[in-house]
Amino acid sequence: MKSLGRHLILELFDCPSALLDDPEHVSQSIIKAVERSGATLIKPFFHQFAPQGVSGVAIISESHFSIHTWPEYGYAALDVFTCGDVIDMDAAVTSLKQDFQALSIQKMILSRGALDLPDEMIQHKPYALEEAKLARSGG
Amino acid sequence: MKSLGRHLILELFDCPSALLDDPEHVSQSIIKAVERSGATLIKPFFHQFAPQGVSGVAIISESHFSIHTWPEYGYAALDVFTCGDVIDMDAAVTSLKQDFQALSIQKMILSRGALDLPDEMIQHKPYALEEAKLARSGG
Repeated sequence: MKSLGRHLILELFDCPSALLDDPEHVSQSIIKAVERSGATLIKPFFHQFAPQGVSGVAIISESHFSIHTWPEYGYAALDVFTCGDVIDMDAAVTSLKQDFQALSIQKMILSRGALDLPDEMIQHKPYALEEAKLARSGG
Repeated sequence: MKSLGRHLILELFDCPSALLDDPEHVSQSIIKAVERSGATLIKPFFHQFAPQGVSGVAIISESHFSIHTWPEYGYAALDVFTCGDVIDMDAAVTSLKQDFQALSIQKMILSRGALDLPDEMIQHKPYALEEAKLARSGG
């Protein structure tokens, strides 16, 4: 049974607090991971909380990346939700682990939209790439 | 062992395609579910793909809601990621199931950031609410 989406649940532990509390570093790290994975960025958004912590989401043409940081615990929760088979999740994980200097990580991959259809009937929105290019050139 | 975040993985099946392909309906349904859950909206963003499908994220002061729809399969993938104990996830699920007229759903709840600390040492970012109020009044 094939699924429409792959969803990586990524836990980063024992990261330097300063990196997790710097919205510039967080946003640049996510955008870099999007690029390394081969995904196409549509719209990033990041928000810093007081007194600490950053939340952010990058909508990509293949779904989204998200991050929530707890600098006080050296912890970040990341999600990489993709459709299609071209996204290199390992490249994203390597990039994120490195940029946040995580001493330990946990990973889990979920199948989303596992439909009871033959594999050849499952489409992966290849048209989304065209739309994303339009969105980027327009913005 | 207490965790910093609760992450609801919600699969909606057999929804009318027209509802899943209408960005207005999708955005209004997500924002309504945020309100019903008791969460505080910071920033919503939705994107319509050609020829069909909608992706969207709502950053909330307690983390995020996200949705990706496949109208051609009547399927939507939703995530509700929250910190703190005050968010009513059941209210969000009821609202979403109703608004998308899903004939069947699947739910899974993940604990995110399960730290090896005594419960009383785990903080849930109550200060985030103050920041969110500032952001709303400013925007």
